[in-house]
Amino acid sequence: MAKTNPGRFFEDYTLGQVIEHAVPRTVGAGERALYHALYPARHALYSSDEFARASGLPQSPLDDLAAFHVVFGKTVPDVSLNAVANLGYGEGRWLKPVYAGDTLRSSSEVIGLKQNSNGKTGVVYVRTRGMNQRDEVVMEYVRWVMVRKRDVDAPAPEAVVPDLAKVIDPADLVIPEGLDFTGYDFDQAGETHRWGDYDVGETIDHVDGVTLEEAEHMLATRLWQNTAKVHFDATFRPDGQRLIYGGHIISLARALSFNGLANAQMIVGLNGGAHANPAFSGLTVKAWSEVLDKAETSAPGVGAIRLRLVATKGGAPFELKGEDGKYLPDVLLDLDYWALMPM
Amino acid sequence: MAKTNPGRFFEDYTLGQVIEHAVPRTVGAGERALYHALYPARHALYSSDEFARASGLPQSPLDDLAAFHVVFGKTVPDVSLNAVANLGYGEGRWLKPVYAGDTLRSSSEVIGLKQNSNGKTGVVYVRTRGMNQRDEVVMEYVRWVMVRKRDVDAPAPEAVVPDLAKVIDPADLVIPEGLDFTGYDFDQAGETHRWGDYDVGETIDHVDGVTLEEAEHMLATRLWQNTAKVHFDATFRPDGQRLIYGGHIISLARALSFNGLANAQMIVGLNGGAHANPAFSGLTVKAWSEVLDKAETSAPGVGAIRLRLVATKGGAPFELKGEDGKYLPDVLLDLDYWALMPM
Amino acid sequence: MAKTNPGRFFEDYTLGQVIEHAVPRTVGAGERALYHALYPARHALYSSDEFARASGLPQSPLDDLAAFHVVFGKTVPDVSLNAVANLGYGEGRWLKPVYAGDTLRSSSEVIGLKQNSNGKTGVVYVRTRGMNQRDEVVMEYVRWVMVRKRDVDAPAPEAVVPDLAKVIDPADLVIPEGLDFTGYDFDQAGETHRWGDYDVGETIDHVDGVTLEEAEHMLATRLWQNTAKVHFDATFRPDGQRLIYGGHIISLARALSFNGLANAQMIVGLNGGAHANPAFSGLTVKAWSEVLDKAETSAPGVGAIRLRLVATKGGAPFELKGEDGKYLPDVLLDLDYWALMPM
Repeated sequence: MAKTNPGRFFEDYTLGQVIEHAVPRTVGAGERALYHALYPARHALYSSDEFARASGLPQSPLDDLAAFHVVFGKTVPDVSLNAVANLGYGEGRWLKPVYAGDTLRSSSEVIGLKQNSNGKTGVVYVRTRGMNQRDEVVMEYVRWVMVRKRDVDAPAPEAVVPDLAKVIDPADLVIPEGLDFTGYDFDQAGETHRWGDYDVGETIDHVDGVTLEEAEHMLATRLWQNTAKVHFDATFRPDGQRLIYGGHIISLARALSFNGLANAQMIVGLNGGAHANPAFSGLTVKAWSEVLDKAETSAPGVGAIRLRLVATKGGAPFELKGEDGKYLPDVLLDLDYWALMPM
Repeated sequence: MAKTNPGRFFEDYTLGQVIEHAVPRTVGAGERALYHALYPARHALYSSDEFARASGLPQSPLDDLAAFHVVFGKTVPDVSLNAVANLGYGEGRWLKPVYAGDTLRSSSEVIGLKQNSNGKTGVVYVRTRGMNQRDEVVMEYVRWVMVRKRDVDAPAPEAVVPDLAKVIDPADLVIPEGLDFTGYDFDQAGETHRWGDYDVGETIDHVDGVTLEEAEHMLATRLWQNTAKVHFDATFRPDGQRLIYGGHIISLARALSFNGLANAQMIVGLNGGAHANPAFSGLTVKAWSEVLDKAETSAPGVGAIRLRLVATKGGAPFELKGEDGKYLPDVLLDLDYWALMPM
Repeated sequence: MAKTNPGRFFEDYTLGQVIEHAVPRTVGAGERALYHALYPARHALYSSDEFARASGLPQSPLDDLAAFHVVFGKTVPDVSLNAVANLGYGEGRWLKPVYAGDTLRSSSEVIGLKQNSNGKTGVVYVRTRGMNQRDEVVMEYVRWVMVRKRDVDAPAPEAVVPDLAKVIDPADLVIPEGLDFTGYDFDQAGETHRWGDYDVGETIDHVDGVTLEEAEHMLATRLWQNTAKVHFDATFRPDGQRLIYGGHIISLARALSFNGLANAQMIVGLNGGAHANPAFSGLTVKAWSEVLDKAETSAPGVGAIRLRLVATKGGAPFELKGEDGKYLPDVLLDLDYWALMPM
């Protein structure tokens, strides 16, 4: 019997099944520096231990998206090795900051299954949780992917589609223990705009652009131990191109959004997300944001802001979908998240 | 009002103005490893904690040029976002080693202003200081850049050009506390040549070459949180090329200079520097040095050596300027610095 | 006299000579993260401090091959700067794990010399040892290289060819102190196959492929302070290509072998190795393994497995040599090593 992992096919998933993903990972000073080398990340809470301490945390946490990538990367061999498409994200929450020396692992519960009408593929919904070495859940999110069937004649499971919240209720957002923005240093953070300065409906063009490189997206994707073949092997696709991991675009767009959203410090909720079009080396990525909502929190000086973050191939900002309701060809990413901002 | 940073224009600077630059940065083991991955750096004091301890320091400091890049990077959004050209450096001194866990920030004082005769641009002189979390100045330097005016009709300020020292007096160099080269291990450092073996006027061809890659200069430039668009966005220049951050060339040339100057361990003074020609991916960088001066210091076994470090596109070593007094087209960098060497 | 290192030529080596290689190196969290970014490394013992502790070690060691690269890199200026070819490795043993904060240096003893019949080159055999800051030998191996003569008229030394073991006797393998696989977590390690599940003669196609990039092999090779010109300077070879450091291919193939050999956790012996063909950017590397032998060890729950690891340009797996006994053109690496696996 082959000793290599063939991945799971649609009929290998059952409702309620819990999959413990392999290869725990200890993160630290190296991952932190690499994150800053790979993305133009400048949010002060993650750049400066002193700024984090002045905000009530013991030190700078690992970037929230880096924590997401590590947790996500572990799921790939079990969830998306035979995936045809990554369809969406939802109900994501960051529950505990991750610090240098923490060891992350992750597990996923199958919460939905629906065979497609073509009989060849199906949609699998999993709720993934990342845990640290103290068995504390550091983050959780739902993801749904389209997966091939091994045997097209295998019977379809009873269709169960989970009822997912379109938006996380701000009352359910978890604010890191001790977080306090009452002494926030706007000069050191880089911008003077506080929570009250943003209006729902406001849009921000983040102006800067970054051209994608093969070596960079591969370094990043490997760092998170994401092993999907299409990201690394130029012979895998007929066109000889390597598909860039969607998370690379998320991190790039988020880092670009510093310019205009320098004070949207911590990501605490992921309401939804779609990779609208594939990204390849050579493209120049730009980003824009829209303020979707705002909410108060119980933490001192801390407000929540709901943002749409859109990454594009450099097209006109603020254009998202065509008249047909489909994403425009220039759009790479449409992400809906909650961040914490000084009030 | 736009929330993104449009950068400052010439008329936004006033003499004596002090600008606190944003986004403090904690450095550590990750930055150290990346510096060794990005540049062929081999100076033993920065490679080995044991070697640093045997030299009287508590551990290896962050490479002096990495400290410079971090301090410099913070100034970019405030000083050079609308710069037409980076004209020069001077009066640079390293005042305290930077160790893992230190958090750096920087501020600049406007010490000179001179509108150009075309009325469209002007030269801004700033003295920049980098501070650690204990508010100790770890380095300082003067930089002058040519900056666009927002409004060509804005009145010209009174012209003030600072009187900068051409060379830092060796008596003003700051030797790190405790530095002692009396027990220096030349075998482990890699070369036997000591301070007394170098003659003023001597030139050294550093022989090795490194071909520039887009992914590498972008990783480096992001690591220092330098956000200038031209380094990252291939669509920004009409020729579709990304201009390489001048500091990348400085670090590359300094690392190449190990071969012949392995014992020029610490950089303590920057007398001057010019980026003679722009650098782009695909070029192969070589370097040569000239001994400009030598001086004794008060530290045990420690001499100072003044060096000209020239980076080229691979042209003949030891050629710098043409008959017209201009840099030859093959010259990328002309740097004048003081280093510390065992006597 | 030139101050740069011209490298040693064949007549510069004498039997019994011991060369202390320069530039000690402290390793840590940065090297660990970079190793994971550069290679698709997933062996749990090196990924998770918790997994390492559960296996009886104080924390994750530096990857065994990273330790090898650091020790090897230091020998390049003294051993292979004028080498025509890297002919082989043998009698390699890992003797002590390397942990964050350790400082490595290396020395080589000349154990064999044989001038080639053409009179222009000769083969030098060295036994290299890597030591930590406590003067403990962390690894040793023999390497032989073909080196140019400076003066073809220099007399040939008496030919001495060391009698090297073809395979390290399993009784001579050194198991890290405290290593205990009796509580091994196969789920977290990623595969269920234990030592008893592998048969001598069994072959495994590791399936995945990685396309080589210039920026990546240069980052890796610099990280280990390997300074051989051919890896960095595109103008050095007539064809304008940079030859990729053989160790880059070793690490890549070993990381790919996770898929099928996830439990071959630690490398403790290097029986032999050959770089069958040169590797260049743009190639897609695949790997396959063959189980050559198995042995018990004295450590609880720990078995030894001898593996052939072959890296290819993507050719058919399990094909190695042609009818003429020469490596097939698609083969990049043929490595023979001992690893430790849970029983």
